[in-house]
Amino acid sequence: MAGPAARAMKQSEIVARQIVAQILGDRLAEGTRLPTERAMLETYQVGRSTLREALRMLESRGILSIRTGRDGGPVVRRPRASDLGEAMTLILQFEGIEFAEVFAARQALEPILAGLAAEHAEHSELEELRGCVDRMASSLDESAVFHAENLRFHELVARAAGSPVLELISHAVEWVADGIAFGAVDAGFSQGARQVALTWHERIHAAIAAGDAVAATAAMEGHLEDSREAWMSRYSDLTQRLVEWTPLTEAPA
Amino acid sequence: MAGPAARAMKQSEIVARQIVAQILGDRLAEGTRLPTERAMLETYQVGRSTLREALRMLESRGILSIRTGRDGGPVVRRPRASDLGEAMTLILQFEGIEFAEVFAARQALEPILAGLAAEHAEHSELEELRGCVDRMASSLDESAVFHAENLRFHELVARAAGSPVLELISHAVEWVADGIAFGAVDAGFSQGARQVALTWHERIHAAIAAGDAVAATAAMEGHLEDSREAWMSRYSDLTQRLVEWTPLTEAPA
Repeated sequence: MAGPAARAMKQSEIVARQIVAQILGDRLAEGTRLPTERAMLETYQVGRSTLREALRMLESRGILSIRTGRDGGPVVRRPRASDLGEAMTLILQFEGIEFAEVFAARQALEPILAGLAAEHAEHSELEELRGCVDRMASSLDESAVFHAENLRFHELVARAAGSPVLELISHAVEWVADGIAFGAVDAGFSQGARQVALTWHERIHAAIAAGDAVAATAAMEGHLEDSREAWMSRYSDLTQRLVEWTPLTEAPA
Repeated sequence: MAGPAARAMKQSEIVARQIVAQILGDRLAEGTRLPTERAMLETYQVGRSTLREALRMLESRGILSIRTGRDGGPVVRRPRASDLGEAMTLILQFEGIEFAEVFAARQALEPILAGLAAEHAEHSELEELRGCVDRMASSLDESAVFHAENLRFHELVARAAGSPVLELISHAVEWVADGIAFGAVDAGFSQGARQVALTWHERIHAAIAAGDAVAATAAMEGHLEDSREAWMSRYSDLTQRLVEWTPLTEAPA
């Protein structure tokens, strides 16, 4: 019934899959040019319009980008978390969802990741977390450095959870929240807010390092509830602001 | 730094946003044809190549589909959970992630949704859940009906959680898992497995109806752990099977 494999594939879909298999099989790096159209027609033994349909399908899925101009043609692109974030943003915009809901999803997801991190973090991941917290502590006066380390901390916790699917989802949600936030507000923290965030991060790190999943979950919950309140009181219009897509084409490689 | 609004938008991106705003503002239904190119050039006051770039951008994001042929042109499309599922599948395939990880993500997400449903479900949602469980009970002999109601139950729980963002994510993960599952295995349940699933669904429903978040979370955890074990013992190769994209173009509207 629902599954994508429930019907026969079109010729162009089969070719699209073969091209993906080739990109992966040959470990083609991002930016690698695909063979010429003539060579691909030969390889896949299909008509020109079928091949073009396959390439267009791959382009729309973010697996190829088609360069225009004299030296143009399809080049390999790696699908990434921001693609997922964009797709999510658009669906939420079409459904008329408020920003507060994105924050609520973060509040549900990140504590789970913190709990999983306490169970799964490897030694090197704990070291990285420690380093990140230390750099936050020493950059309380430098808003930009502090902010970068702040984002990094949440990424490291997600990584340490050892669930690539949840990590990906969390990055996408983060991306959606960040996009709205950066579009809407000054991302700077006050010095007081930086101190509060640091204290929470230290607590979360300590719980993860101790392998205490319950404490790590609770600390992440506390941290996010705290920052939600701070945000909402500082930017009260954000609560009702609707999710809105900002197109983001890529800088030419 | 990271946010999409951190750089100035290109002209085509501004037009793309304006077109989205118009689709939403005018509540254009899926399948509605956009104005002619000439009319849009007039409306947006840009050059033809800028407009075409904007339309192509929207097509690649699933907001328009461009019909070919004599009666062709851009028509409105609604971005949906399966788009997100597809984007997720591709990223996971490029990262070489195993199917077991998708199941693990479901196991982390759905218990949270069940817990939230116990706190937020409205009367009408409880009725729907009840009806779904009843239909499962009376279709223990009909594999297809039972299977459809089984999927429906999980969708209803996600809806009742009252978090549109988590609901969307859960649908996308479900879509990824289903796609792999349907491609790989016979989706039928044995009669014994149907009875076990029904018993879990009854328990989950009872906990949600009682407003008991802890019990609902635990019951969903038990249900998913049970079905994971059943799947993995029945289809042991699934554990190591990698996530793989199946292209899915849409049937013409």
